[in-house]
Amino acid sequence: METVKIGILGLGTVGGGTYQILEMNKETIEKRIQKQIEVVKVLEKNMERVKALGLPESCATTNPDEILCCPEIDIVVEALGGIEPSSTFMLTALNNGKSVVTPNKAAVAANYAELREAAVKNDVEFRFEASVGGGIPALTAIQEALCGNEFTEVMGILNGTTNYILTKMTDLGLNYDDVLKDAQAKGFAEADPTADVEGIDVANKLSILMALAFDKYVPPTEIPTVGISKITMDDIEAAKEKHCKIKLIAHAKKDGDEVSYSVKPMEIDETHPLAGVSNEFNAIYITGNAVDEVMFYGKGAGALPTGSAVVGDILAIAKAL
Amino acid sequence: METVKIGILGLGTVGGGTYQILEMNKETIEKRIQKQIEVVKVLEKNMERVKALGLPESCATTNPDEILCCPEIDIVVEALGGIEPSSTFMLTALNNGKSVVTPNKAAVAANYAELREAAVKNDVEFRFEASVGGGIPALTAIQEALCGNEFTEVMGILNGTTNYILTKMTDLGLNYDDVLKDAQAKGFAEADPTADVEGIDVANKLSILMALAFDKYVPPTEIPTVGISKITMDDIEAAKEKHCKIKLIAHAKKDGDEVSYSVKPMEIDETHPLAGVSNEFNAIYITGNAVDEVMFYGKGAGALPTGSAVVGDILAIAKAL
Repeated sequence: METVKIGILGLGTVGGGTYQILEMNKETIEKRIQKQIEVVKVLEKNMERVKALGLPESCATTNPDEILCCPEIDIVVEALGGIEPSSTFMLTALNNGKSVVTPNKAAVAANYAELREAAVKNDVEFRFEASVGGGIPALTAIQEALCGNEFTEVMGILNGTTNYILTKMTDLGLNYDDVLKDAQAKGFAEADPTADVEGIDVANKLSILMALAFDKYVPPTEIPTVGISKITMDDIEAAKEKHCKIKLIAHAKKDGDEVSYSVKPMEIDETHPLAGVSNEFNAIYITGNAVDEVMFYGKGAGALPTGSAVVGDILAIAKAL
Repeated sequence: METVKIGILGLGTVGGGTYQILEMNKETIEKRIQKQIEVVKVLEKNMERVKALGLPESCATTNPDEILCCPEIDIVVEALGGIEPSSTFMLTALNNGKSVVTPNKAAVAANYAELREAAVKNDVEFRFEASVGGGIPALTAIQEALCGNEFTEVMGILNGTTNYILTKMTDLGLNYDDVLKDAQAKGFAEADPTADVEGIDVANKLSILMALAFDKYVPPTEIPTVGISKITMDDIEAAKEKHCKIKLIAHAKKDGDEVSYSVKPMEIDETHPLAGVSNEFNAIYITGNAVDEVMFYGKGAGALPTGSAVVGDILAIAKAL
């Protein structure tokens, strides 16, 4: 059986989850794709992470070039997060003839065109299913199973932290500050929650969704973005009286050649499928001129759900190699 | 630009919808896949259908061999419905080296192994995304983006007619017979609604879902199946008191090597995402050991939604040709 060799940059939540899934489901994966997947090198300085996953210490390196320039590696998984040095690492890997898989929405949204062009130029694949909606396989569906459609509208609940906070405010009548503190204590929100609660994370994801659905790239910094930090119990109650729930919505709509877009809290009617997306769950609701309305729902974060999307991308590339 | 040639068996709802989408989105499709898709022949005796779609009369034939044995046709779309002669036609096409796409759940469920084996033997593709959940791209996701998962449970609302009837009984307090008559008058239910209301259609779809998710083929006739024709207003009210909605659920669960399965009305908690799937909408809710819970939601029937799935399959094959 042929072996496809992988290098992983970063064994944090998603990098670690990806390795765990490849080990946990090894037999099933080999049976399905008729190839072996082997992680041969990981960029990770924290040896506790390496040992905790059961990887031999010899697999770990602190020198990225041992992965990016290694002739035997077919696919590089970039799971470091942040725009740099991740983007430069991905470009180097692509230019060295390696396919790249990443969950890194900030890097994909910031350098979308450059990364895709490098993949085309080098005749390799660049996949980023995990960058929007974690484990939810919406990006692949938009590009493949739904690719006979012209898309007219995208709506998404794309951030688990803010959806958790809004759900608790709505269901339990608690105010924003108290729920945020509780979420931070439980590890659902970061110590500095700015990127989540101010909608910056969601803007990155909407930038990627628009690029795929409308073939229109808008830098995330140019998307009008309002977060949830100013939502009060009065807002929640006012929405309830209209039989609505407040959700942080990434929205883009195409009218002819014009695309309008925003990230902001919106009142969603209780009967709309997005109103039922609660707590840490995410959903992508998209309208095509053939399929009409479709919604994809699932976990937008977490080691194994997000790792599931990374592994899906790895296997798609491995099958075609 | 290379041209991929298609033959369509049957210009009914789905066959006609497929042709419509290929025409309506011609430019977008060509830009996306860098190939032209041309429908060169259709099996259809009703010339009104041919003319209504704007197809030249010379495209139409009443002799299936003009499609199944035509050397220039790359992909055959079987949209006749029913187990025979559809299954025989598909086997003939596969054995003649053509890839096959079908929305025909009855034929796929009845002859699953034979059809897939014929495709493998002839090194062609056999795709049937439209056979479960119409336009919802769940089958492709299970086989591709989610293929790093071992699946443990599948639940589906897979029939629009019965979901419409149950929704109206629940929301408007109307009894089964009255809603069925209304649905028939509106064209949402067939004159003979047996296959829908007794769960036979759903059992076909569950057979296909289990084959893909669990690699276990169970003939639809061996799936314990109960429809909705005996559901009373008392049942609906009893469910409401438990904060539940009654839905016709296709359910399969894997425990070790054992798979249990059934089609029957079930009480679904109001907070479960499947409870929010109303009227003619369908949904597939699947649990994997990495991704956890994922739901796919959309229109399970109709010319364009179902045609969207057929076109998605056509384009996947065309890209790889």
